[in-house]
Amino acid sequence: MTLHERPLVGAIEAGGTKFVCAVGRGPGEGILARTRFDTGDDPVRLMREVGAWLSDRQNEHGPIAALGVASFGPVDLDEASATYGRVTTTPKPGWQGADILGPLKAAFPGIPAGFDTDVNGAALGEATWGAARGLADFVYVTAGTGIGGGGMAGGRLLHGLVHPEMGHMGLPRIEGDDFAGTCPYHGRCWEGLCSGPAIAKRAGMPAESLPPDHPAWDFTIHSMAHAFFNLACVLSPRRIILGGSVRKAGQLGEAAFFDKLRAAFRNTAAGYIASPALDDDGIREFIVPPSLGDDAGVCGAIALAHAAWEVRVSGNDPA
Amino acid sequence: MTLHERPLVGAIEAGGTKFVCAVGRGPGEGILARTRFDTGDDPVRLMREVGAWLSDRQNEHGPIAALGVASFGPVDLDEASATYGRVTTTPKPGWQGADILGPLKAAFPGIPAGFDTDVNGAALGEATWGAARGLADFVYVTAGTGIGGGGMAGGRLLHGLVHPEMGHMGLPRIEGDDFAGTCPYHGRCWEGLCSGPAIAKRAGMPAESLPPDHPAWDFTIHSMAHAFFNLACVLSPRRIILGGSVRKAGQLGEAAFFDKLRAAFRNTAAGYIASPALDDDGIREFIVPPSLGDDAGVCGAIALAHAAWEVRVSGNDPA
Repeated sequence: MTLHERPLVGAIEAGGTKFVCAVGRGPGEGILARTRFDTGDDPVRLMREVGAWLSDRQNEHGPIAALGVASFGPVDLDEASATYGRVTTTPKPGWQGADILGPLKAAFPGIPAGFDTDVNGAALGEATWGAARGLADFVYVTAGTGIGGGGMAGGRLLHGLVHPEMGHMGLPRIEGDDFAGTCPYHGRCWEGLCSGPAIAKRAGMPAESLPPDHPAWDFTIHSMAHAFFNLACVLSPRRIILGGSVRKAGQLGEAAFFDKLRAAFRNTAAGYIASPALDDDGIREFIVPPSLGDDAGVCGAIALAHAAWEVRVSGNDPA
Repeated sequence: MTLHERPLVGAIEAGGTKFVCAVGRGPGEGILARTRFDTGDDPVRLMREVGAWLSDRQNEHGPIAALGVASFGPVDLDEASATYGRVTTTPKPGWQGADILGPLKAAFPGIPAGFDTDVNGAALGEATWGAARGLADFVYVTAGTGIGGGGMAGGRLLHGLVHPEMGHMGLPRIEGDDFAGTCPYHGRCWEGLCSGPAIAKRAGMPAESLPPDHPAWDFTIHSMAHAFFNLACVLSPRRIILGGSVRKAGQLGEAAFFDKLRAAFRNTAAGYIASPALDDDGIREFIVPPSLGDDAGVCGAIALAHAAWEVRVSGNDPA
């Protein structure tokens, strides 16, 4: 489907720090309007403001055919559940049990709405327009304030009992690394070792200030490589896309960060998984940044809206 | 579909130690004949013997409608590949590049054949007749001589770039554990810590001889719990089924092993994933042994044959 053939939709990238809202049909020039709101601590007011902004854009650009929300979590993704579309347990003030989808559905009655995790949204955006086009099995990771992962297996977004919480997997200790980690639940889990705050805590300064040869980069990158190898062991993805701010790597730089990460991954795998995708050349296409860059999230929300719209027009929507 | 409605098929559980062959329609009384061959070091001769045995059973029980092979690995699962149906890289003498599927297809021309990993086979068997019935998202793990895992996401068997190699994921070190692990590739990976040979190496005696309070059980079970939690983080399965010999746990006993594993899992998760499935009661249905017991593998091969047959009769088979 070309951008032009896709319907106009409303999209919300619901993050823990900011909500990015857009009206559009896809990435780049496909986004007709966008804005951002601070997430704050009053979800009821925020969702009213989001609804009002989207409603104003309809007056400007014409009616939207569907809504898509790619949300921070944990969220309830079970459509049969009474709390579907809500945040579940979060330490974030005001957000415990907050309803994200409900107020939007009430403000736009009769319009189909897609709702998934921020990372599954970004994964779907990359599958539709970006670095995962044509891939039925891949992982999308974001490493920034926290670490999360989504993706597809067999061409379907990963769901399950709750939804993946990849950032909390446990990792082997790199030799010489005595950092206790920052995760309040698990200490040295992936997020506790490799998120932005973890790097800052380990180094005693923000990641952006670290000199390129600071040992914190090595520990971070080698731990990240262990996590990527674990993903490869469990899911056998055809590609791992790493988004989020950590990959930008301050003074080390994004290109050097990816090169070091790829080398560390191959070192960790130790040749066990035999595939041209993991050899010297292949690895450059196996571990990649998102094609949609920092728009992966909001484009993912657009893609979720399109998916909900397609279900509706195909007649498979029970609603 | 009842057992009676399913077609008669030939099934091969191709293991690194033995090949279990059967002709039947499903588990229990559904298996009309079975035998076993030592895997040995001569795959050409072995596959000739397997073919001859299946052929003789046809004379006895009537024609078979499909073949299913659930194989040890790593194997090539890419139907478009020139080496589809073969073992790829293995240190096993005689088996590097060995063709498992080819000789069977040649011996039974025109019959559809399903081919997958032993663990995906067992997973499909459990999904069809056992502990994973009705579950679209689950993991099947076998821990014995080695450790492997398969399963489903979104109702489809996990495949991807190659196939999952879950047993090689890296794990956090349990406090006080200085065991170097036994994996020639990764040392302290899951398999290097929790396989039967790893337990024996750590304890200096076979797992069956270990007293129930031997510390090797604690280290093994806590490492296993870390691996299960990592699976939960990456895949969000609705259930994890643990087959293989390690779970039988010698003098400790299978029931005690599972109780300790469930408790260690909850301890590792530290309450992070909020779901009734992981609470005190739910966990007993979340981490379970295979319903098909030691027949999970051969029943899986039958299920793979049925799946190949269904593709053929539905007209979706390009062959």
